[in-house]
Amino acid sequence: MSIKIIKVNEAILGANENQAEINRKRLDEKRVFTVNVLASPGAGKTSTIIQAIHALKDKFGIGVIEGDVASAVDASRIHAVGMPVVQINTAGGCHLDANMMVPALDSLPLDDIDLLFIENVGNLICPNAFSLGEDTRLLIASTPEGDDKPYKYPAMFTDTDVILLNKIDLKPYLDFNLDAFEKIVHELNPDAVIYPYSCTTGEGVADWIAWLEAAVNAKKNG
Amino acid sequence: MSIKIIKVNEAILGANENQAEINRKRLDEKRVFTVNVLASPGAGKTSTIIQAIHALKDKFGIGVIEGDVASAVDASRIHAVGMPVVQINTAGGCHLDANMMVPALDSLPLDDIDLLFIENVGNLICPNAFSLGEDTRLLIASTPEGDDKPYKYPAMFTDTDVILLNKIDLKPYLDFNLDAFEKIVHELNPDAVIYPYSCTTGEGVADWIAWLEAAVNAKKNG
Repeated sequence: MSIKIIKVNEAILGANENQAEINRKRLDEKRVFTVNVLASPGAGKTSTIIQAIHALKDKFGIGVIEGDVASAVDASRIHAVGMPVVQINTAGGCHLDANMMVPALDSLPLDDIDLLFIENVGNLICPNAFSLGEDTRLLIASTPEGDDKPYKYPAMFTDTDVILLNKIDLKPYLDFNLDAFEKIVHELNPDAVIYPYSCTTGEGVADWIAWLEAAVNAKKNG
Repeated sequence: MSIKIIKVNEAILGANENQAEINRKRLDEKRVFTVNVLASPGAGKTSTIIQAIHALKDKFGIGVIEGDVASAVDASRIHAVGMPVVQINTAGGCHLDANMMVPALDSLPLDDIDLLFIENVGNLICPNAFSLGEDTRLLIASTPEGDDKPYKYPAMFTDTDVILLNKIDLKPYLDFNLDAFEKIVHELNPDAVIYPYSCTTGEGVADWIAWLEAAVNAKKNG
């Protein structure tokens, strides 16, 4: 028997774009380089942000907006390292949107911030359709998720500039083919830069931090 | 500075329930034990289903409905082990719903099926609000996601009977506290049964398969 494929249409809403543009202008005026951080649950978004804070806090003012369905677990971790943080609880909602950014931006000392991380809800689907006003999207994949994820969540891997591949330290224990992963990603997104690294061992971290530092400086001084 | 928390309301739609009830009656008449399989991307849904197929295919007729945003990667894996399978592509949609089940159930030989797996879209948020007509929900967590996931996706851990904890073979390489995970789960869902296991090594698999076999037999003969 052959495999039957049923396609279901779903309209992707675009009404979010106007507010995203207002947010973008506000962040541009303050020269805040803003990163929309996207990943599956447990890929290491918060750990990666904390590692970047430790690497760059003496060079830049840094702020964080945390998005979660529930809890302030992640905001507490950011607060513990001394950074200004706002927690947005979506109460069941599967992504952040541009309107949610307004009170969050109102709460942050934007004059003192050069680098703003927005940690989106852990989800490889819904956040893709909603710009927040960011300068760039940072997609964090992780080796235990498998090397076939770009096939299954192609929009997320297409609409991003930089892909971080976390948990590279676990690769020896997994059936994960790095060449295959890079090949699939570049079929979808030829210009994407991929940085393999590990929050646990620190391997590869310096490379993507160097990219981030250059991007923040370009906006701050540009 | 203290952490500011912003709550965002989102209405959860319930109009799905009528069709779910129609699906449930149809599956009950055919005595098909139906499992809605839920997890993050890459937790091991398809691998777990394939392992169950190998363990039970001589005892039961088994069918699979695969839900994905894009691709037929998973359906091809199920097809390769010789089971009837239908792929639903949601084209950006973040969950299956009861209406999508109708053509899928029409395509399957229900008279020959005792056990039907419905692999939902990889997502710990959206699928929770949408019953499909299943007998039970099987939530698959995995150790690399971290032991704090129940705090952050509480609805998914609350509205399930059985929680499988995959990739227990990776625990020695991770900062994952099994006691803490079980404690958090049971605070949310005191009656949930948790089965740690590994699709890679086979550790713990027999225990959850025994639970599944008993449940299929109870419906088949009940």
